[in-house]
Amino acid sequence: MAPPTEPAYIEIAERKQRALAAAIPSEWRLPAHLIPEGMLSPADSITKGPKEYGKVSVMDIPRTCGLLTTEELAITEENDVRGLLKAMGNGKLRVEDVVRSFCKPLFDRALARAKELDEHLQRSGRPIGPLHGLPVSVKDTFCIKGVDASIGLAALAFKPSEKNADLVDLLESLGAVIVAKTNVPQTLGTLDSCNHLFGRTLNPLNRQWTAGGSTGGEGALLAMHGSMVGFGTDIGGSIRVPAMCQGLYGFKPSDGRVPYGGQEGGQIEGKGRISIQPVAGPLARSVADIAAVMAEIVPRAELFGEDCIPGYWPTPSVPASLAAPRSFTVGILKTDGVVTPLPPITRILDEVAARLRRTPGVEVVEIPLPKALPKCQALAGRLMGIDGGSNMLNLVESTGEPLTPWLQGRLKRGKTLTINQLAQLQAQRAQVEKEMLKMWTLSSTSRDRQIDAIICPVAPHPVPQMDRYNAVGYTSTFVLLDYPAGVVPVRAFAESDLELGRAMKDPVLGSWDKANRLLWDEKTVDRRVYLDSPLSVQVVTPKQRDYELYQAMEIIDRAVQNHGAPATAKL
Amino acid sequence: MAPPTEPAYIEIAERKQRALAAAIPSEWRLPAHLIPEGMLSPADSITKGPKEYGKVSVMDIPRTCGLLTTEELAITEENDVRGLLKAMGNGKLRVEDVVRSFCKPLFDRALARAKELDEHLQRSGRPIGPLHGLPVSVKDTFCIKGVDASIGLAALAFKPSEKNADLVDLLESLGAVIVAKTNVPQTLGTLDSCNHLFGRTLNPLNRQWTAGGSTGGEGALLAMHGSMVGFGTDIGGSIRVPAMCQGLYGFKPSDGRVPYGGQEGGQIEGKGRISIQPVAGPLARSVADIAAVMAEIVPRAELFGEDCIPGYWPTPSVPASLAAPRSFTVGILKTDGVVTPLPPITRILDEVAARLRRTPGVEVVEIPLPKALPKCQALAGRLMGIDGGSNMLNLVESTGEPLTPWLQGRLKRGKTLTINQLAQLQAQRAQVEKEMLKMWTLSSTSRDRQIDAIICPVAPHPVPQMDRYNAVGYTSTFVLLDYPAGVVPVRAFAESDLELGRAMKDPVLGSWDKANRLLWDEKTVDRRVYLDSPLSVQVVTPKQRDYELYQAMEIIDRAVQNHGAPATAKL
Repeated sequence: MAPPTEPAYIEIAERKQRALAAAIPSEWRLPAHLIPEGMLSPADSITKGPKEYGKVSVMDIPRTCGLLTTEELAITEENDVRGLLKAMGNGKLRVEDVVRSFCKPLFDRALARAKELDEHLQRSGRPIGPLHGLPVSVKDTFCIKGVDASIGLAALAFKPSEKNADLVDLLESLGAVIVAKTNVPQTLGTLDSCNHLFGRTLNPLNRQWTAGGSTGGEGALLAMHGSMVGFGTDIGGSIRVPAMCQGLYGFKPSDGRVPYGGQEGGQIEGKGRISIQPVAGPLARSVADIAAVMAEIVPRAELFGEDCIPGYWPTPSVPASLAAPRSFTVGILKTDGVVTPLPPITRILDEVAARLRRTPGVEVVEIPLPKALPKCQALAGRLMGIDGGSNMLNLVESTGEPLTPWLQGRLKRGKTLTINQLAQLQAQRAQVEKEMLKMWTLSSTSRDRQIDAIICPVAPHPVPQMDRYNAVGYTSTFVLLDYPAGVVPVRAFAESDLELGRAMKDPVLGSWDKANRLLWDEKTVDRRVYLDSPLSVQVVTPKQRDYELYQAMEIIDRAVQNHGAPATAKL
Repeated sequence: MAPPTEPAYIEIAERKQRALAAAIPSEWRLPAHLIPEGMLSPADSITKGPKEYGKVSVMDIPRTCGLLTTEELAITEENDVRGLLKAMGNGKLRVEDVVRSFCKPLFDRALARAKELDEHLQRSGRPIGPLHGLPVSVKDTFCIKGVDASIGLAALAFKPSEKNADLVDLLESLGAVIVAKTNVPQTLGTLDSCNHLFGRTLNPLNRQWTAGGSTGGEGALLAMHGSMVGFGTDIGGSIRVPAMCQGLYGFKPSDGRVPYGGQEGGQIEGKGRISIQPVAGPLARSVADIAAVMAEIVPRAELFGEDCIPGYWPTPSVPASLAAPRSFTVGILKTDGVVTPLPPITRILDEVAARLRRTPGVEVVEIPLPKALPKCQALAGRLMGIDGGSNMLNLVESTGEPLTPWLQGRLKRGKTLTINQLAQLQAQRAQVEKEMLKMWTLSSTSRDRQIDAIICPVAPHPVPQMDRYNAVGYTSTFVLLDYPAGVVPVRAFAESDLELGRAMKDPVLGSWDKANRLLWDEKTVDRRVYLDSPLSVQVVTPKQRDYELYQAMEIIDRAVQNHGAPATAKL
């Protein structure tokens, strides 16, 4: 009998981590004395819990580590997208200097591109495109020719992509420079970004909180000003959850607005077309930054992605406050009928509603629970699992990877549906979509839209500790329905939100609701872990009305923020 | 042993035909001496060939039969949609008179609605909606509460629908009056409109030609001025083929532009979402009439159909000649690479190209055969058959219906695909869609659109005799790709198109091409059967650019028509 051998993934992960480390010049590495206590190895980061980390924010490291010059800090900390583009477009800032300020792995490629852009501007006197020099980052799923898209799986490591994803082609044609690819969870199916290849992405605001997933690497990088705009994907909430966890703005567009093609998702090809289609979209530090990139992407998307269609997005974007043609009506949707939001989530919705009521030109109405809404979470889940997840599990198992903690006991091989069962699910979805139309007219008979946008929770709980995220119904629902949906951070969780000693009295609705209470029950959680965490709201507009989502986010952001300063700035 | 019993469908069909006959008042029936010779019973019409009919046009019967008064003829023969709407909106014409002029079965319901509309106008001084009083007809697939949607199947006869199709609701909310439901082929899967329940729909221009399908009943009714606008559906060509066969304008929109929901298609529910989605759209006697209804439907569609999305269609429609922002470039696509068009089809394309070259502001370029185009017909066919057609065949067989002639030997139960095979087909489709993007930029690297619209054949042959329609690749391709596509009639087939004694020399490309030659080979067809038949072109714009399709059809129509008179007027 041969001696027991180590599973293949361990050697691959070690090799990948060495390669990654080798790509970062020693002078850009954090000196040992500045590394916060309790930093774990990638392997340990997967299994150890929040207690191992202590409550440590690493947000000030870029400013205090000494690796960035005053000029570089001025670039990464102060500029918004349009300001930075202006400075690069008129030659006040060199792209190379800007890109170097943001650099991370991929930097050889990024710096070479930066030099090309500077030369182009010098030679022609004109920027190469409307996003000339903009440092952006992308989730690891987006293929870049010659670079791995391993999505945290040993099975896909050291297999460089053969061509660019369509969005990468589009961003580069506009002049953007991709400075990093960012971490995701094993299987892409959890709300933490943790895998055996790279370890766990930590939340820089507080390493005990989850960074969210599956676009968690983008969330962490953007919060630390490591990129100006990050691009993720979202099927269950993968753009919006990391945005919430790091106090950022996340924008999940409708299907067809941003090219999705050319990604590595670990799924059978073509699955999105027959089940539920994930979408690509941006995360950023302001609504304006989201608009700055969407205004350039949307009108060109149909020429880059076969999955894209013409979309309305005027350039330059009309400020929503001016464009709003009449009184703007916001509906408040307090629950999805499956999981009752915990008290701080309900409170933040009430606060935003109150602010909106005081905003001239805005009307606020409460939305009664739509009859079909409670069906959405389960239906979305069943559509995601039509093939029993076997392709992904084959990849995981091929190198002997164990499942990461959150997945253990939750992910199992399911049954593959038949064509007839699949068609039946889609027929149910059509029925749910049809019933949901009434939410916008406030009536089952009227066909006049009464509601311009709704606000609702992003999740039924605050930013939880790692590996404790609960239901995704509040986010997956709007992929099922193809409603564009974004996240707007509001304020930090305060002492007054704790309500220590006061228990939640609402009747328990079911197993998901019961699990959610564990995040508030003082027997199962110390509520103080939520102190200072970002509290956000989700903004949703009707199917395929993406520009209107931007307008709604802008109106809501102005109403809740102090002169537009994002919540992260106040944390 | 029991005596052999008659299959159930025979009694059902006889009962249905009696019910239909009973619904038409005797004073509206054609007197026996005016019925053209060779009219067959519904049952005989299915099996007898074109020889039984002789070459007879019935187009002048409405004008000569004496059933319509001079005033009624003035209404049905002379008005276009906008003219008629104006006269009803300002009270010059009563809706009741207009609807009575157009009446056919459904007339009780239609006349009652007409009276309501007249009363509304009298009471309020205002039309009820922008299509106040407009007589329209719909394919039998569209459900109307209380009325059968039997789609020519005995199994579905005498089962009145429980609610309206979304498009019916939308049309009625706009003020339109539905005056008829129209005939379709058995299984909806042939290009003739022939079934055991109602018999065969004949082409009123010439009863030897096919009326086309599957929206053939609309084609025949519209050609005879029995309705102002007809609504059909199209997955393989079912709007465009009848338009071609009757010299009408047909408009197959993109998916999401016109509500499709609430139809009886004989398919498993939800199938369109996982395979290839049929779309609903109008047929009419002018481009202007198509625009008149689309301009009202498109902006409201998203509130009526959960399958609809916001669409751009300015109201009132800007005349394309004024709106065209710059030189308008039309690409000429001469072949799909699967079936070489017969000489008259190539000639009509060349003629239209020549007219366009002489049109100020229009540029014409030849489009090289896109590499992916020849894959489209087979791929569309496979997507239509993912469930092996078993649901439809179960319906047909449940009452013992034999297949109609064209289907015999062509339609068999197929194998149901697995989820993985289905996903694979959709992945191939995405690849084909991506390759096809290059057709619009004329280059594999450029991302600037060079082509505004293409023209290509509707079919690779002229309007054939009944039961001889060949490949549908020229039409099904643009459903596969979700490109909006319309039909513009050009002129009648002339003596000079016959080329008697001259054989086609092009190499035969395959079995479909070989079958197509039988429609031109003088050993297998007397080419004189095509004399006077309408010759049309197909106009296609990029994915989801429906308003641009209308503009392109208008430009092309003006270029080829004598002051906009449709081809039917010249037949």
